[in-house]
Amino acid sequence: MTINIKDYVLEMARKAKDASYSLVAMSADNKNKILKEMAKALRNKKDFILKANKEDLKEGENSNLSEAMLERLLLDNKRVEQMAKGLEDVAALDDPVGRVLDKRTRPNGLEISKISVPIGVIAIIFESRPNVTSDAAALCIKSGNAVILRGGKEAIGSNMAIAQVMNEAASRIKAPDGMLQLVETTDREAVNELLKLNSYIDLVIPRGGEGLIKAVVENATIPVIKHYKGICHIYVDKDADIDKALDIVINAKCQRPGVCNAAETLLIDEQIARTHLPLIAARLRKSGVELRGCEKTARIIKDVVRADEQDWKTEYLDLILSIKIVGGVAEAIKHINDYGSMHSDAIITENKVTASKFLNMVDASSVYFNASTRFTDGGEFGMGAEIGISTDKIHARGPMGLEELNIYKYVIKGDGQIRE
Amino acid sequence: MTINIKDYVLEMARKAKDASYSLVAMSADNKNKILKEMAKALRNKKDFILKANKEDLKEGENSNLSEAMLERLLLDNKRVEQMAKGLEDVAALDDPVGRVLDKRTRPNGLEISKISVPIGVIAIIFESRPNVTSDAAALCIKSGNAVILRGGKEAIGSNMAIAQVMNEAASRIKAPDGMLQLVETTDREAVNELLKLNSYIDLVIPRGGEGLIKAVVENATIPVIKHYKGICHIYVDKDADIDKALDIVINAKCQRPGVCNAAETLLIDEQIARTHLPLIAARLRKSGVELRGCEKTARIIKDVVRADEQDWKTEYLDLILSIKIVGGVAEAIKHINDYGSMHSDAIITENKVTASKFLNMVDASSVYFNASTRFTDGGEFGMGAEIGISTDKIHARGPMGLEELNIYKYVIKGDGQIRE
Repeated sequence: MTINIKDYVLEMARKAKDASYSLVAMSADNKNKILKEMAKALRNKKDFILKANKEDLKEGENSNLSEAMLERLLLDNKRVEQMAKGLEDVAALDDPVGRVLDKRTRPNGLEISKISVPIGVIAIIFESRPNVTSDAAALCIKSGNAVILRGGKEAIGSNMAIAQVMNEAASRIKAPDGMLQLVETTDREAVNELLKLNSYIDLVIPRGGEGLIKAVVENATIPVIKHYKGICHIYVDKDADIDKALDIVINAKCQRPGVCNAAETLLIDEQIARTHLPLIAARLRKSGVELRGCEKTARIIKDVVRADEQDWKTEYLDLILSIKIVGGVAEAIKHINDYGSMHSDAIITENKVTASKFLNMVDASSVYFNASTRFTDGGEFGMGAEIGISTDKIHARGPMGLEELNIYKYVIKGDGQIRE
Repeated sequence: MTINIKDYVLEMARKAKDASYSLVAMSADNKNKILKEMAKALRNKKDFILKANKEDLKEGENSNLSEAMLERLLLDNKRVEQMAKGLEDVAALDDPVGRVLDKRTRPNGLEISKISVPIGVIAIIFESRPNVTSDAAALCIKSGNAVILRGGKEAIGSNMAIAQVMNEAASRIKAPDGMLQLVETTDREAVNELLKLNSYIDLVIPRGGEGLIKAVVENATIPVIKHYKGICHIYVDKDADIDKALDIVINAKCQRPGVCNAAETLLIDEQIARTHLPLIAARLRKSGVELRGCEKTARIIKDVVRADEQDWKTEYLDLILSIKIVGGVAEAIKHINDYGSMHSDAIITENKVTASKFLNMVDASSVYFNASTRFTDGGEFGMGAEIGISTDKIHARGPMGLEELNIYKYVIKGDGQIRE
């Protein structure tokens, strides 16, 4: 690059801000047209994208990326088609902008409306999956926001190809320049500069591992919404229906262990541990799950690895489950509030009073009564799509869809009112 | 202090987190009882508070605080009564916790409710007015949040006395310990430590000058909601009713010039500047307002100080108004988006199409059509009370009342659902 990083990023942010003012006023039809045109372009330019991806993969092999990383980096016909389809799916969702969230007329005749509006400019910092480029861009554009994307260095070629194809399509139908921009340098300095541009960027959403998110939080003066790990718990109460408990524990742990809404810790009431835990453990082991247990657990089931303090804080993302026997719902709640990540936690019980205590007192984005934590997901919640699952406690908790990428403004209509 | 600052602040944050779990489940009646008991105590212990305040004032005079600062620091019978009354007013408001914000049943039978819950632990960093101690505490407690207060060093004695009286009252009726805590050291290190305690503190709200807010933003890893300055604009369109324009400009500038929703800049369409501006300027001057104008303004009205770039960015908080003649609504919008602080901006026009463009495109928390910007206020908006006026673009914009001190959680009820 011939210009310096600071100027490069500042110019990018300025362009994004300008574009955001056009997006505020853009009709749903227009935004949908852009998304559909982009989808078409991804299909037409598939070979161009796959070629860039092949080079990223070669580079990745040379620098000894893990198999898992390479698998995440890989694009093929099917994945590009999914990206295109994703854009069309977002186009089909309702426009979140301009909803009247509240309306009141004051005694002095002022009519105050609270109207949903785009947040403005959103920066998304993400890791290796190149499909995030199109997924995140689609959600931001549909919700009326300009977006600045910064992907991982392993995927820089793929991301640039995808962004280029999308932008060519957008420019053909006169979308505002600067609506979708990708940081085209892998220099870390670019991110650090970006994270301080409060005047132009309204929100940053980091998507990736804990290290990435912590670095963003520490460097940002822009507001951040964090999508931290999911240390999700299933508490099997003394009044649990054992069949529900078995199905839910197996589902929450095994159906897709590598995702954030999978369970990592099983809490079980000591009054039923002796009868229920062996059944649950047998089912889990049949599914290939490694069990790590507290001292009391080890007295009930054989060959269990002893869990320590670190286990309660660990998101295994694997077929491993930690188990703790607790004295009842109060201890379960305390354990979850101490060690959980405010993501998703479930109680299995037939006792509605106990359930209500748990649902009230557990501090998580999503609390479940007799259902699997695996349902914490924009699609499953009926939002259509999500940009991630917030573990923060301001603005948005849990799945963030189009509505959560909006904020509001107050529009006040008068006929000359002044304040007395 | 005998223990070190880091441990002191950490212990405080831990206690606040514990208290927040009790507050989540506390009934509205109970919270109201606490607030009313506190109000009673403020009245009963008035002399104790005034004595502490007198010492702060003496100290302030010795260290040459300005008259304005001393005035803000001063407590008297009337102000203590206002504080007590403020607590009772907050007690009388509806409980924001537990509202069902949305509810849906999914095809698989899961019942998903979005329920308002307290944010958790809120830290308020504020400057000299000691009444913030009781006002902010009341709003946090009523909304179910534990609160950590850190006031200015000039008011430390007054703040400690107020917090002590409130806490004694609270403990008489068994409110959770740690619900209301004041940082009792003026060491800056305490704030810097506080601002990094993400695991315990969920939100920080700085209230005060720009310097304070910037320092908080730069040091915090906790989410911050900023209440920056108000650079508010009135745009008088070519289709304005001159009588409305006159009344609104005078009201927005003069009724209370020292507050954030007062107007700082008048924008006027060049097509009517020659006829309307002299009338407006005369009325403003009659009210003692100093006028600073752009080049074109200086050609129309006499003896106007020339406004420069800096004027457009300045919150005078005084009887000074900057004036710019613009080419129409588009230029007005651009000026506001470039120089405004996203607080409150108004258009005066009889043309609904022009108004609609302005209301849509101006990026501010509150946009006005034929009314004074002075209405941006929790009370005027019908919220009952406010903790401040957010100029941020996530979580809350404009007046922040009890509802804005809540967030939500998803409560999902099933009967054994697992994800396929």
